[in-house]
Amino acid sequence: MQEVLSHDHIRATTVRGTDVYNGEGEHLGHIDDIVLGKQSGHAEYAIMSFGGFLGMGEKYHPLPWQSLSYDPGLCGYVVNVSRDQLEGAPSYAAEEEPDWNDPAYGRRLQGYYGLPVI
Amino acid sequence: MQEVLSHDHIRATTVRGTDVYNGEGEHLGHIDDIVLGKQSGHAEYAIMSFGGFLGMGEKYHPLPWQSLSYDPGLCGYVVNVSRDQLEGAPSYAAEEEPDWNDPAYGRRLQGYYGLPVI
Repeated sequence: MQEVLSHDHIRATTVRGTDVYNGEGEHLGHIDDIVLGKQSGHAEYAIMSFGGFLGMGEKYHPLPWQSLSYDPGLCGYVVNVSRDQLEGAPSYAAEEEPDWNDPAYGRRLQGYYGLPVI
Repeated sequence: MQEVLSHDHIRATTVRGTDVYNGEGEHLGHIDDIVLGKQSGHAEYAIMSFGGFLGMGEKYHPLPWQSLSYDPGLCGYVVNVSRDQLEGAPSYAAEEEPDWNDPAYGRRLQGYYGLPVI
């Protein structure tokens, strides 16, 4: 489903809706949005959503951008986390947006996805 | 119109549709999309669109992300370019997507908006 702009560049609107899989090729969800550092212009998190029906009961998992790699064969992103691990991962419901400015939250996410905690 | 996530972070879907003004406060257009470096996760361009009617005749101006600053008073981004300058700026029609991987195109954009050309 994924129209890739080029091998190097991608549009934010193209990232949105892209499927996310784990290392075993299991479908985990899709990208709902990207959270950018306003000044830096750096994509910090891809917000993955899954479950729910017509927006009800939907859960959002912020994934550190560096934890994602794009797999052209799957036409989707891959994050190395099992379904079980995902169950315990930081997530929120639609009405509970986290505080993206909280450094502790950022560190928790980095740590959960096995990235260096700054 | 702009819902700002926080003073530091912003969602790609929030950036989309945000108005763009020049230094004189003249309305130039709105952000249509963001072009990200796929590996780096860095927002390189904000694509500004203006003119046209129902998508017909619309023109797209890629603006280097660093050329934009957010003005909370205007609820929009400010880029230091006059309407006349914008007329001569690199732009494309909907059916003429530029090659974002062409370094010469990137340099042209950087130079046009008075940014250091790498």
